[in-house]
Amino acid sequence: MTDPSILVVGSVAYDSVASPEGERTEQLGGTAVFSSIASGYLTRPGLVGVVGTDFRDEDVAMLKNHGVDVSGLEVADGNTFRWAGSYVDDLNMAVTLDTQLNVFETFNPTLSSDHAGTPYLFLGNINPDLQLSVLHQMSPRPRVVACDTMNLWIDIKKEPLTQLIDLVDVLLINEAEAEQFTGEASMVNSAASLLHHGLKLLVIKRGEYGAAVFHGSFSFAVPAYPMARVVDPTGAGDSFAGGFMGYLAAVGSGVEDEDAEAIRRATVVGSVMASFAVEDFGVERLRNVTHAEINERFTGFVNLTRFHPLDGGQGLPTPWADTGHEMSDAKR
Amino acid sequence: MTDPSILVVGSVAYDSVASPEGERTEQLGGTAVFSSIASGYLTRPGLVGVVGTDFRDEDVAMLKNHGVDVSGLEVADGNTFRWAGSYVDDLNMAVTLDTQLNVFETFNPTLSSDHAGTPYLFLGNINPDLQLSVLHQMSPRPRVVACDTMNLWIDIKKEPLTQLIDLVDVLLINEAEAEQFTGEASMVNSAASLLHHGLKLLVIKRGEYGAAVFHGSFSFAVPAYPMARVVDPTGAGDSFAGGFMGYLAAVGSGVEDEDAEAIRRATVVGSVMASFAVEDFGVERLRNVTHAEINERFTGFVNLTRFHPLDGGQGLPTPWADTGHEMSDAKR
Repeated sequence: MTDPSILVVGSVAYDSVASPEGERTEQLGGTAVFSSIASGYLTRPGLVGVVGTDFRDEDVAMLKNHGVDVSGLEVADGNTFRWAGSYVDDLNMAVTLDTQLNVFETFNPTLSSDHAGTPYLFLGNINPDLQLSVLHQMSPRPRVVACDTMNLWIDIKKEPLTQLIDLVDVLLINEAEAEQFTGEASMVNSAASLLHHGLKLLVIKRGEYGAAVFHGSFSFAVPAYPMARVVDPTGAGDSFAGGFMGYLAAVGSGVEDEDAEAIRRATVVGSVMASFAVEDFGVERLRNVTHAEINERFTGFVNLTRFHPLDGGQGLPTPWADTGHEMSDAKR
Repeated sequence: MTDPSILVVGSVAYDSVASPEGERTEQLGGTAVFSSIASGYLTRPGLVGVVGTDFRDEDVAMLKNHGVDVSGLEVADGNTFRWAGSYVDDLNMAVTLDTQLNVFETFNPTLSSDHAGTPYLFLGNINPDLQLSVLHQMSPRPRVVACDTMNLWIDIKKEPLTQLIDLVDVLLINEAEAEQFTGEASMVNSAASLLHHGLKLLVIKRGEYGAAVFHGSFSFAVPAYPMARVVDPTGAGDSFAGGFMGYLAAVGSGVEDEDAEAIRRATVVGSVMASFAVEDFGVERLRNVTHAEINERFTGFVNLTRFHPLDGGQGLPTPWADTGHEMSDAKR
């Protein structure tokens, strides 16, 4: 087995979820699980996380079957992290019903020497102190470092989180959290504020409205894939991140000006992965998707968003040029 | 002056607006004003509406200067419709502070014979009974009939509104109102329900998130233009409609399967016009925009949304084909 090209750090969880489409108990979930499965369709991910002795062999086997290097998956005495949430009232926002940190409470990732040199790093949403610790263990610095976060850390860990954002290349963050972190009321202003932190690239996740990308040299936006039925939104953002970073790693792209085309496509690949993730509970759909289906949905995004520039560079029709009536004094 | 190619029916108003960017009193506004100015950049609009004897000559002159045929603008005894609203707490939703219908209360549009044959018709958001009355006066039936509506009419005039939707070709509607009308909780399901009403085309306006188009043969979505500063959202949807329908009229497009490319571009032109409308109070920005600026922003939308399909039809990289590790049992 080859060394991973992307390291994915985050939670591994057993989630109990209720949505308008039903309920599941103790299904496999967690940031690192969704991200590594999604990126595993594109490149070789290495998962860094912790589980308890109750973690199911079949879940380890499934990750391996998806090309995930699980040598960084620590097994600690105790139980795996549990989360329970409900989307019954609002598919766009989970109500947390229960959290049991279990072995995750004392998680302190130590990278193997094999992993410390991985060229792409995704620091999933965990305590920013741990994200910083992992970043500092990397040697040499990875080609691209990306992180995610959540409202909790903005509330209680803003200082290390700010330090982290100053250090990473890419921040993937929800729209509301971008506005919370910056105190700005609009996406564009919060993006401008975040780019001032030295980020090379900002990816704002907008849920059912898609994603927007802000870079020093360009902006890009893609709508979400229109879904008739969202079963379980858990992990959509992590699947997006896995697809996004996995694509960059697969094609060997950085996040500089000259990488704009790859970044645009990575955003669409992330959107593709997120669209699959929400089609069933937990990882049920994401883990069963085929390459043909991924490519087909990418083409679906092409068809959803494409339009032709105006004809022959002549631009829009100018009626007054034809009809001879007066141009407004305001028009030059 | 030539006969109009698009007839725009709706309110003409003096609006008093407060937003985080300031306040204006009695500025020119109304559905028919925004729509006709926006479409006037593309084709020849005819405005059908009513004003009071207080309506300012300079406002009539401005409309004429924008190529608007104002022969259908009735002047009635009394005052022009007044609306007052505030966006101070939420730029995405106006709080109505005051409404004075004035001459609008007894508005009952009668089309001139010149106007009855106009090939494109936009029935802006007014009482569905009046929208139906105008549609029934058209002869022959226009090539494309579009309408808009609002939550008020869904609440109190659902029967004539349903009758209208059954008759028009195109419905332009806000996302929340589409869900209100259909009772469906998702955009895709409300779109499916609305298309069953015999619409050829449904345009769902999503405000700061852009617009989505549903047609029997395709779907299209475009994000909103990222705006650093929204001054006054009043009229954004009407400007969108004016740009959308104005473009179809300008290029002589219908809304059949074979018109998909024009519909996609019309959606972007509508988005361009809406993006200008919100940049200043009332019609201040919209009425001062130049053709060069319109074309430039259209190109801005191209740059915002374009991405290349995957290389050479080979699709995404398939890591396991290269590394030789086992494919998941789930992958075919």
